[in-house]
Amino acid sequence: MIYADNAATTRMSKTAVEAMLPYLEDCYGNPSSLYALGQKAKEALERARQTVASLIGAEPREILFTSGGSEADNQAIRSAAYLGAAKGKRHIISDPIEHHAVLHTLRKLEKEGFEVTWLPVHENGIVRPEELEAAIRDDTCLVTVMTANNEIGTIQPIRALGRICRDRGVLFHTDAVQAVGHIPVNVKEDNVDLLSASAHKFHGPKGVGFLYARRGVRLQSLIEGGAQERGLRAGTENVGGVVAMAAALEESLCGMEQTTDRLTALRDRLIRGLREIPHSALNGDAARRLPGNVNFCFEGIEGESLLLLLDDKGICASSGSACTSGSLDPSHVLLAIGRVHDVAHGSLRLTLGEDATEAQVDEIIAAVKEVVAHLRSFSPVWRDLCEGKTPFIL
Amino acid sequence: MIYADNAATTRMSKTAVEAMLPYLEDCYGNPSSLYALGQKAKEALERARQTVASLIGAEPREILFTSGGSEADNQAIRSAAYLGAAKGKRHIISDPIEHHAVLHTLRKLEKEGFEVTWLPVHENGIVRPEELEAAIRDDTCLVTVMTANNEIGTIQPIRALGRICRDRGVLFHTDAVQAVGHIPVNVKEDNVDLLSASAHKFHGPKGVGFLYARRGVRLQSLIEGGAQERGLRAGTENVGGVVAMAAALEESLCGMEQTTDRLTALRDRLIRGLREIPHSALNGDAARRLPGNVNFCFEGIEGESLLLLLDDKGICASSGSACTSGSLDPSHVLLAIGRVHDVAHGSLRLTLGEDATEAQVDEIIAAVKEVVAHLRSFSPVWRDLCEGKTPFIL
Repeated sequence: MIYADNAATTRMSKTAVEAMLPYLEDCYGNPSSLYALGQKAKEALERARQTVASLIGAEPREILFTSGGSEADNQAIRSAAYLGAAKGKRHIISDPIEHHAVLHTLRKLEKEGFEVTWLPVHENGIVRPEELEAAIRDDTCLVTVMTANNEIGTIQPIRALGRICRDRGVLFHTDAVQAVGHIPVNVKEDNVDLLSASAHKFHGPKGVGFLYARRGVRLQSLIEGGAQERGLRAGTENVGGVVAMAAALEESLCGMEQTTDRLTALRDRLIRGLREIPHSALNGDAARRLPGNVNFCFEGIEGESLLLLLDDKGICASSGSACTSGSLDPSHVLLAIGRVHDVAHGSLRLTLGEDATEAQVDEIIAAVKEVVAHLRSFSPVWRDLCEGKTPFIL
Repeated sequence: MIYADNAATTRMSKTAVEAMLPYLEDCYGNPSSLYALGQKAKEALERARQTVASLIGAEPREILFTSGGSEADNQAIRSAAYLGAAKGKRHIISDPIEHHAVLHTLRKLEKEGFEVTWLPVHENGIVRPEELEAAIRDDTCLVTVMTANNEIGTIQPIRALGRICRDRGVLFHTDAVQAVGHIPVNVKEDNVDLLSASAHKFHGPKGVGFLYARRGVRLQSLIEGGAQERGLRAGTENVGGVVAMAAALEESLCGMEQTTDRLTALRDRLIRGLREIPHSALNGDAARRLPGNVNFCFEGIEGESLLLLLDDKGICASSGSACTSGSLDPSHVLLAIGRVHDVAHGSLRLTLGEDATEAQVDEIIAAVKEVVAHLRSFSPVWRDLCEGKTPFIL
């Protein structure tokens, strides 16, 4: 099996599993308990907080543990919006290729009376700082732009966007779920006020993530109850999960530069290979993209059939985001970068993991070529294109 | 070490750990992914849903997986309240000994214009059905009463309360975090519309729980984003955690009757032993209480010192709920059942696990006797009591 869907989720690393195990059966105390067993769990939790904080340039008290990236997104955006509303500011700026955890939260806020300006992301899927600058108003309370896109892998100019927000006194949130553990992230240098991340995207466990909130940015709790996480996130802490997340992040960052170089080379090899398929196109920016991310459109085929046939060949890939795979709508990201409906339907996302090899990449290229050709051989859409009844777009 | 704080959290069972492991490193796919690896994860998730559902008398589609009991409480109560508000019903009935996840959610709803009637729980900590009946109004949209209390272990007459709510057309939620896996819970027989549970209270992992919502009760999502959990709870599912939770619940219910008999006998032995301490009193009902729960007040001492000295003797116990152990306020539960402030401060909760033995119980009794005597020997409060300067209450 070749697992090329690391943007959907990753395999938990040995290190992370081994870090977690002692907190399940041995050091299983409740961190809120006074006795030694509980305090040991508490110390592990705080050590993990320190690790996570230091790895993204934050202070421990700026890290809040959550059940994942979606919860972190929801809490960050709601907190900033309500902080703004308290000062009469109800304008938010974002872009149309955000993850649904951001988009749906913003849609809900729109219903509550907030106004959202959607910045264009252009053909390459990148927000332009000067367009953000121009969109900021006196009543803007929040800008939320993801660090890297989960489908097309484009990396946003976060530092420049953050700088503008800081200068204009507007809170800046970034959904860094696809970035943390994969590219350098430093909240201080990047002028970020709020940042969301998810452990299972960097070989940690599912069901745990974190929210960075700059000191001074008052969070609202999403889950009321006990006084855990300084009263900002109720519920007994997922000690084992949090410890595993910290271990996974530490491991991911260790030797990241080398991994990036290697992965970028593999990614570009994969892109070169897939470009040989006629009437295909890379989605997103060729250079400013995540090291492991490849996303293509192929004319005349359906993404879903492509995936199923690749699965038969032992290749795990995706047509877009895993979170929307139940839906028949084409990717909102591909539509936003200008792909027409039909073309967007024939998309393929391949996201390589750190252990990917050249041989695997070559196997993927061969398999995709074969499967695309096969699907086109009995596609009426493709026949119409070839017969000139409908024009080729790509 | 004697771990007598199973109401705070439990040790993960071998069965649960072993059920979880394959989903971390091997079957690690995202359940939303189309390929076999993802679908295997999806099947595991749905099998777990079936298991959990069948163990509480529900249907699989009535089970929503959450990050724990607090999240489930928040979502259940908010959903029911907003459903009510949509019909102009903004009255809720509860009681003052609920968990903070319920209390704080209700307090927030009060600020949003809901009115809450707090039923008395009397000396034994039990809500009386006739008092619920009398409190229901035409504009009542929700009754929320916990199945069993986390501090004093009292078991509420859920079936009778649920019957009244069903007859009056009012939604009934119960926080069953302390009950599920410990006493029989059947949502159909108990006339329950919404029920919250948490895995780590029955030897499952921390960071995962579930919410039962009767078919027809429309939930609102607390976390927006992907379409997971039928669009009611966004975020990649914690597959390993959920599978472990189902395994732990299955294990807990297997042979529950025998465990209950054994634990009840041990609990009563512990109660008899502690009653020999002068000026002590059992908190909560002597009969209608969780099999493993013992909660005492001792006059003239501070709960915190008691815990620390017991910890020195290798006994893990609590003064009340772990979720509030950071706070210096006496337990809201003990105050609600009529304990005065000073007495409530000298409380001790011992919650036995399934593996507790008679020898351990005897060791606890001897240790508590010794520690209470020791603390009293230099307590000015105790001296004043003995010298008649202040009257004994217990």
